[in-house]
Amino acid sequence: MSVLESISHFREIRALSFEKLNVLCNELRWFIVEALSKGEGHLGSSLGVVELTVALYHIFNLEEDRLIWDVGHQAYPHKILSGRKEQFSTNRKKGGISGFPSIAESEHDHFGTGHSSTAISAITGMLLADNLLGRLAHHIAVIGDASIVSGMAIEGLNHAGSLGLPILIVLNDNNIGIDPSVGAIKEHLNTLQQGEKNWFTTMNFDYRGPIDGHNIVELVDALNKYKSKPTPTILHIKTIKGKGIKEAENNQVVWHAPGRFDAKTGKLFAQEHEGYTKYQEVFGQTMVEIATQNQRIAAITPAMPTGSSLNGFMNRFPTRAIDVGIAEQHALTLAAGMSTRGIIPYVVIYSTFLQRAYDQLVHDIALQNLPVVICIDRAGLVGHDGATHQGVFDVGFSRTVPNLTIWNPMDEYELRQALFDAQYTTTPIIIRYPRGYGKLKHWKHNFGHKVSPVKWKKKKDRKVVVVSTGTISSYTITPKVDHVHLFQIKPIGGDFFSALLEYRTIIVIEENSEMGGLGEYIAAQLLKMRFKGSFYTRAIPDRFIHHSSQTQQREELGLDQEHINQWIEGLLCCG
Amino acid sequence: MSVLESISHFREIRALSFEKLNVLCNELRWFIVEALSKGEGHLGSSLGVVELTVALYHIFNLEEDRLIWDVGHQAYPHKILSGRKEQFSTNRKKGGISGFPSIAESEHDHFGTGHSSTAISAITGMLLADNLLGRLAHHIAVIGDASIVSGMAIEGLNHAGSLGLPILIVLNDNNIGIDPSVGAIKEHLNTLQQGEKNWFTTMNFDYRGPIDGHNIVELVDALNKYKSKPTPTILHIKTIKGKGIKEAENNQVVWHAPGRFDAKTGKLFAQEHEGYTKYQEVFGQTMVEIATQNQRIAAITPAMPTGSSLNGFMNRFPTRAIDVGIAEQHALTLAAGMSTRGIIPYVVIYSTFLQRAYDQLVHDIALQNLPVVICIDRAGLVGHDGATHQGVFDVGFSRTVPNLTIWNPMDEYELRQALFDAQYTTTPIIIRYPRGYGKLKHWKHNFGHKVSPVKWKKKKDRKVVVVSTGTISSYTITPKVDHVHLFQIKPIGGDFFSALLEYRTIIVIEENSEMGGLGEYIAAQLLKMRFKGSFYTRAIPDRFIHHSSQTQQREELGLDQEHINQWIEGLLCCG
Repeated sequence: MSVLESISHFREIRALSFEKLNVLCNELRWFIVEALSKGEGHLGSSLGVVELTVALYHIFNLEEDRLIWDVGHQAYPHKILSGRKEQFSTNRKKGGISGFPSIAESEHDHFGTGHSSTAISAITGMLLADNLLGRLAHHIAVIGDASIVSGMAIEGLNHAGSLGLPILIVLNDNNIGIDPSVGAIKEHLNTLQQGEKNWFTTMNFDYRGPIDGHNIVELVDALNKYKSKPTPTILHIKTIKGKGIKEAENNQVVWHAPGRFDAKTGKLFAQEHEGYTKYQEVFGQTMVEIATQNQRIAAITPAMPTGSSLNGFMNRFPTRAIDVGIAEQHALTLAAGMSTRGIIPYVVIYSTFLQRAYDQLVHDIALQNLPVVICIDRAGLVGHDGATHQGVFDVGFSRTVPNLTIWNPMDEYELRQALFDAQYTTTPIIIRYPRGYGKLKHWKHNFGHKVSPVKWKKKKDRKVVVVSTGTISSYTITPKVDHVHLFQIKPIGGDFFSALLEYRTIIVIEENSEMGGLGEYIAAQLLKMRFKGSFYTRAIPDRFIHHSSQTQQREELGLDQEHINQWIEGLLCCG
Repeated sequence: MSVLESISHFREIRALSFEKLNVLCNELRWFIVEALSKGEGHLGSSLGVVELTVALYHIFNLEEDRLIWDVGHQAYPHKILSGRKEQFSTNRKKGGISGFPSIAESEHDHFGTGHSSTAISAITGMLLADNLLGRLAHHIAVIGDASIVSGMAIEGLNHAGSLGLPILIVLNDNNIGIDPSVGAIKEHLNTLQQGEKNWFTTMNFDYRGPIDGHNIVELVDALNKYKSKPTPTILHIKTIKGKGIKEAENNQVVWHAPGRFDAKTGKLFAQEHEGYTKYQEVFGQTMVEIATQNQRIAAITPAMPTGSSLNGFMNRFPTRAIDVGIAEQHALTLAAGMSTRGIIPYVVIYSTFLQRAYDQLVHDIALQNLPVVICIDRAGLVGHDGATHQGVFDVGFSRTVPNLTIWNPMDEYELRQALFDAQYTTTPIIIRYPRGYGKLKHWKHNFGHKVSPVKWKKKKDRKVVVVSTGTISSYTITPKVDHVHLFQIKPIGGDFFSALLEYRTIIVIEENSEMGGLGEYIAAQLLKMRFKGSFYTRAIPDRFIHHSSQTQQREELGLDQEHINQWIEGLLCCG
């Protein structure tokens, strides 16, 4: 029996010999590779912390001690060791375990993560609470080099370092986030030596390292030393993302989440999309085109060059492309500053990460009415990343902000044209588009007329109208009703509402939270204008939406073309 | 003629002798003291940077060079020197100049500020833009020691330090924000020496200092040295908040914004409020009471012990009160961490600053459904601080978040009881209350029954109902209509809407943005339930609301008792 199979509870890991620990690491690594070759997931990060995870389980009593995995996409070894080996094949799938730690899923996930840089704050809170309640426990956070430089993490360091209480921050330094790490601190990290003053020691932390994060003996030794004399400590370990798989080590960006692959040969299975293009690619390619024509355009990404398909732009216009690292707040205000000096900044940011920069959107961009273009990628349902990453709140939170114009294109054509149109704006603009592939094989048209804020498909004598926005507007809706696409969801002209008043039944459909959504706004206008007919909405309900494929999520919520049409037919028939 | 009067344009300051520069500082200081003794404003911070401001104007060409004042409450000397001396008596008043820099107000305000820690990001953006466009200019940000440790500012440092481009960050270190500075970095700042490795040098900045920020010769010398050899530089100056006024130097917290006072004697004029209590005091005093009874309660403030009236709690329960400094993101996730370990954290935060922690509210608190109590102070219109500080978006942005319960008390009684009730919650709760004084002389009742989510004042046979929430519900509304107070604005039970359907006319009034506000939610429910009557709302319109008193703002927006009743009478008469 393998060591991995022989462990019935993770507490048994504490008694294992170095020899068995090493065997366990090897088995764990291949267990993950096997499993992920059949299902998609975060491979590279998890392979990088196999030894660290085993060493932590060996040294600490993780039934009592608290351990937080920052971001959490590297928590697969932890999940497998803490009782989810059998379910691991369901990772990120509908009804299966989450791809991130989740306190609802297991008592051994001490804190749910997903967005980066939260772990230091959370573990500090646990430390203070345990102290107040007289509970003895060790408090450990594992955080990567790309995440520890995000503002929130440093706020945590600044606080934790001032407490004089024992806390262990393991800095998992692999010199990369999803894309290579950037910034002054990252350069500094490469120079750290035990015994010298450094960024961490100036914040009252003991610094230990750097040590080889793949050497179980070194890890165990360092953790034992901490345990025998706990102080506020940074343990700096150097790891290799994708460790153990040559292809993954050599191509860390691709193997961050490689999709399915052949576990024996390391050959990636090509994803088939029959000539369709991801929306992020439409963004990336269009940006290169418009920036070629207009020298004033620059692009800003907070650590997502690959995820946003900004790489082409970065290669072509290195001085006009800025990757600020995981620093969403800085990204938006940096753009505001550039804008005051005549540059037209396009900030590309996932909807869920724009939540990190809401105040900067309000206070630095909208209040000053600066012509910054915010391109919201992954707007709407995002699929397997699940509840932590859904892009379903941005309509609600951005609609509250004065001066913003919000565009929500229905397809690749409109997105492309919108990106073009936005360069001429004199006020801030949001352009939002979903994760995943579009539906058009040919979308690279010549830039033409400005996208119309409203697009009607009116038929004669119809009494029912469907109002939709975003890619739902590209669905084929039953010919029994009129259909109107709202490209511009803020502001909306009064004549649009006047036109709606001609209908007996109005149906609003949108792929974002119903709370604060477009439907509510339309309802309020209609009611004030004394609309007397029937009103229906379909949107994301007021609960967190868990992981499954985008298709499954849309089906479950009745937001796919088929369910929408069935629902409309039902309304037509029986009201 | 005084030097200050003799200056017709600030460029003349560049030619002044040291003697005249010193005279100018003295005159400027007394000009500010005189003006603020007659009107309220941010005294201490502005007095602390008189010499710095004059030195910057002496050395730099501020028609071309860019200068940003972080937070901006210390920008009074800058405003006076850059052409707003005559208008300075209108500071923070309706129609007058803003208490913060504003690009809409003057071309010499290069970037609008108000919230802390934005300046480094913004000046870095200007630097990059000027570089791209081949514009030669110096780029300077002035930022305080309390603000530079906020995450956003450090994100800016991390980026700026990596560029290798000239930028000057003046660290105005007075060891205090509004309340004394906290954290590990602050302790470190007190030890810095020229030539030694420190927190800034690890981020690729040259460090120069510390120097006496009230010595114009030292300041001019240091700025000249920077100018002759510009590199990424931190110039660390030590200043005294309130410099020049003995009372202000000795009591820096009170003299941050002292209200009116006698310029000769330094005696503060007592504020008359006839025995009424500020809502923040109701919070502060009630917190002490409930924490005395319940050992599990802790309180967290991001740098606002005084502004939130948490001082009493901090003195009484020092280990259970946590001031994390300007670190809103950290504050919320710290609370989440504490909550997982059985502490009941009350985070008290201004509405406008909760915008900084929206993602933490969603991702760390609501998604995990943790029983954290978020006490939103300064919800609604905030008066003289103006557009940067209005608390009018929180209903919109928090209503979109699943799992949250939102309470909006009508008076001191309800606030007090709500704070008591919240300790028994098993899910996250928001309690929001306004800036300023309540209306009750006696509000310290014994804790009683849980506050009812809805409070009806029904009369017989009324056809019209006013729905309000928050302190508007304490207004006397014309007896011709029914009136209902929504204490709990999320979730709202279906029976509430059923009850509304009995009316012919429904009027919703709230003191927050109409966009995403309660009115929209109610409208959507009513319309889906086939309400056929009339519907009206009154709320904050979709634009930024500028500075004047709270009373003036409410009058201007028709949200005071008199205007609301006039409006309702108008609707009753002529619909």
